Amino acid sequence: MENQSYEVKMNGSGIHEKNALIGAVKSIVCLAKQKSCRQRWNIRPSEMSINTLNPIRAIVDGMKLTPNPEKPMIALSIGDPTVFGNLPTDDKVLQAMKDAIDSQKYNGYAPSVGYQKSREVVANFYSCPEAPLEAEDVLLTSGCSQAIDLAITVLCNPGDNILVPCPGFSLYKTLAVSLGIQVKLYNLLPEKSWEIDLQHMESLIDDRTTCLIVNNPSNPCGSVYSKEHLQNILSGEPCSFTPLATCVLYLHDQVFPGCTYQSTASLASDVPILACGGLAKRWLVPGWRLGWILIHDKNQIFGKEIRQGLVKLSQRILGACTIVQGAIESILNNTPQEFYHRTIRFLESNSEICFSELSTVPGLTPVMPSGAMYLMVGIEMEHFPEFQNDVQFTERLVTEQSVFCLPATAFEYPNYFRIVVTVPEEMMVEACTRIREFCQCHYRTCSRDSNELDQ
Amino acid sequence: MENQSYEVKMNGSGIHEKNALIGAVKSIVCLAKQKSCRQRWNIRPSEMSINTLNPIRAIVDGMKLTPNPEKPMIALSIGDPTVFGNLPTDDKVLQAMKDAIDSQKYNGYAPSVGYQKSREVVANFYSCPEAPLEAEDVLLTSGCSQAIDLAITVLCNPGDNILVPCPGFSLYKTLAVSLGIQVKLYNLLPEKSWEIDLQHMESLIDDRTTCLIVNNPSNPCGSVYSKEHLQNILSGEPCSFTPLATCVLYLHDQVFPGCTYQSTASLASDVPILACGGLAKRWLVPGWRLGWILIHDKNQIFGKEIRQGLVKLSQRILGACTIVQGAIESILNNTPQEFYHRTIRFLESNSEICFSELSTVPGLTPVMPSGAMYLMVGIEMEHFPEFQNDVQFTERLVTEQSVFCLPATAFEYPNYFRIVVTVPEEMMVEACTRIREFCQCHYRTCSRDSNELDQ
Repeated sequence: MENQSYEVKMNGSGIHEKNALIGAVKSIVCLAKQKSCRQRWNIRPSEMSINTLNPIRAIVDGMKLTPNPEKPMIALSIGDPTVFGNLPTDDKVLQAMKDAIDSQKYNGYAPSVGYQKSREVVANFYSCPEAPLEAEDVLLTSGCSQAIDLAITVLCNPGDNILVPCPGFSLYKTLAVSLGIQVKLYNLLPEKSWEIDLQHMESLIDDRTTCLIVNNPSNPCGSVYSKEHLQNILSGEPCSFTPLATCVLYLHDQVFPGCTYQSTASLASDVPILACGGLAKRWLVPGWRLGWILIHDKNQIFGKEIRQGLVKLSQRILGACTIVQGAIESILNNTPQEFYHRTIRFLESNSEICFSELSTVPGLTPVMPSGAMYLMVGIEMEHFPEFQNDVQFTERLVTEQSVFCLPATAFEYPNYFRIVVTVPEEMMVEACTRIREFCQCHYRTCSRDSNELDQ
Repeated sequence: MENQSYEVKMNGSGIHEKNALIGAVKSIVCLAKQKSCRQRWNIRPSEMSINTLNPIRAIVDGMKLTPNPEKPMIALSIGDPTVFGNLPTDDKVLQAMKDAIDSQKYNGYAPSVGYQKSREVVANFYSCPEAPLEAEDVLLTSGCSQAIDLAITVLCNPGDNILVPCPGFSLYKTLAVSLGIQVKLYNLLPEKSWEIDLQHMESLIDDRTTCLIVNNPSNPCGSVYSKEHLQNILSGEPCSFTPLATCVLYLHDQVFPGCTYQSTASLASDVPILACGGLAKRWLVPGWRLGWILIHDKNQIFGKEIRQGLVKLSQRILGACTIVQGAIESILNNTPQEFYHRTIRFLESNSEICFSELSTVPGLTPVMPSGAMYLMVGIEMEHFPEFQNDVQFTERLVTEQSVFCLPATAFEYPNYFRIVVTVPEEMMVEACTRIREFCQCHYRTCSRDSNELDQ
């Protein structure tokens, strides 16, 4: 059915015959008038819809995912902390929503950038002396994805390009490419806990580069940048690139005990920053679709124009559900600290289990995360000659062991896979055991290694 | 500050001097390398954000709205039924939301087109034998505005044009123009209860016309089209234009007792239709941002391609808040009929009060609506020589009588104003009295009339 135009047959019986006659008359009129002469029913989807690509779907839909019927499926692929029921949000968060409903104050339209009071609450929550925020610096959005969409859309024209981390979450590319904006992937360095390869990034910058996207803590890596590395990113040092307007995604802004999270904005002296976040991961309610943009612009480099541009764009479809907006004050101010601590301790514990288990599996090189809820695992493909790539590797892991991990080709980073560490602990342990068994079964000493040994 | 580029000064003291040196070095490197040589901090908002225009805001922000301090303000301008508290949603609707929260089943990500079950519920609610719907025919969106955005975006490329009603709600134009899609305004005929001037519409169609937007019942007119008129729109008769893919907005799909509402889709034999609706107005919760697209495509003219295009576009920012999606089954199935009847009886009663009051005001020509929550009033400008247009007229109405009605220039239809009839009855009565007083004060017999009398 695809890629063909649709023709409606005009002949038939009864009413249709009458229509056929009218149709013929129409054609004559049509020829005479020229201007309204259009091919009948040649309806095609727009270029933008054709160019809206979802790499994860494209790859997963192409995989044969038939689990081993003798083993229950364990999905380590789903970046949604709610699916196993082991990480519920806090009761205070639920109560805040019910209170907002009962108040009947939040049923009408909010301003397109969000209620003033709700913006103020978010500003206060994230304000710090080095990067102060006021209500006017906050836009509330329909999830963090709309925040990213608005940030990219206000800064870029078709033909411009943006710098995006590799590996990185696919949404930046989905949004940018659909708008005719080019995406340039800068490398992260697994051996340096996924720091940015600044020299590589510099090599990508040209006069159409409009912004740098930084994701910290990172999906899919779970990495958290040091203060020094963030300063280097912002200053362009030790490389020589001119600093760029920066969009920081900080959806998982909690890090493991012992690690330190530094907000990028708190280190920026002049670099203007749009920081995109939301309720999704820290409060464990991604479906509620409340995100935000924090505008950090100490030296008025974005100035009024970018702010006005964001406001204008926010009027296209309005923003977040008003009930969640009404609940945000209580959610941010009344959620007990213990809830955040419990969540992060669980994620760290599961990460450690996964990392320590897979570290001793020949052929795998997991990279320990410092935060978020992901862990990347390298596959030494030369030791798994049966598989051409991470997609085949993870496909067969399902067939044999009923464990599904997302191949990192979905993040444009082949020969790795991503594990989501939100699953219950016993599932994590069982999954690691099965991954070990799978690798032991398929691991081969490299032929080159053998040759070297021979010599 | 606007329309100038921002320059950051590099000289200063202490750290800034060091930066100046590095800056100078950077410039040299920059010259040598050429490619990364960019003007420092010349950040401009994108063309799309510049082209995102909100005519209502542009006009209202330009008006001097200083009410008469001796009279309390009455705003008849706000298209939000919740602002006066006299039209609360039903308790069952609120309970459905709280049940969805308590279930904890709706905190995670939903599919980008909405939960399957929720889509099924909407399909069942609107399905009829002449236009049957299944879950696959429904996409849930972040409010009706995202529904309209997706519908326009999937059908049109930059350079295409769409046909939009005049007077009409400004969002179609805001969305289309921001995407580089041209808007052609077809006239509605006040003397025919705002039916479409089909001949005028036909004259606008060219080979880049991709879709027709029909708003029925209408904002701002409150008109409801007859079966015969809808059939003419769909068939192109009695004119000779080829039928067009049609987007129908039916946000207010309730009509006054005695009037008949006919869904456009139920009359379409082959014309493919995207019908955009939502919870906003019928359930009186516009802030909750739950909208939908119903795909009516009996003869597979949209086919798989347009459906896939919509699905792809829905993945850009995902859709509606999951709590509202979880509540939709109960909202659609358990809201008592009496709630709908009470709402529509109130709107009809207020419309009748307003219409009958203003009908006897010299110089005004109100048009009685058949549904929705709006009423348009014509101003016989020749009888109000003090005012150049509807904007000046409504501006002075605020200054003198503290009554604000939206000038219909905001709907590209000068010399009318729109009244929203959701205000409490006593406010409606009082507002009409004040409008009468205002008109009596400023009404002048036409000079041309006088001349005719003289002769």
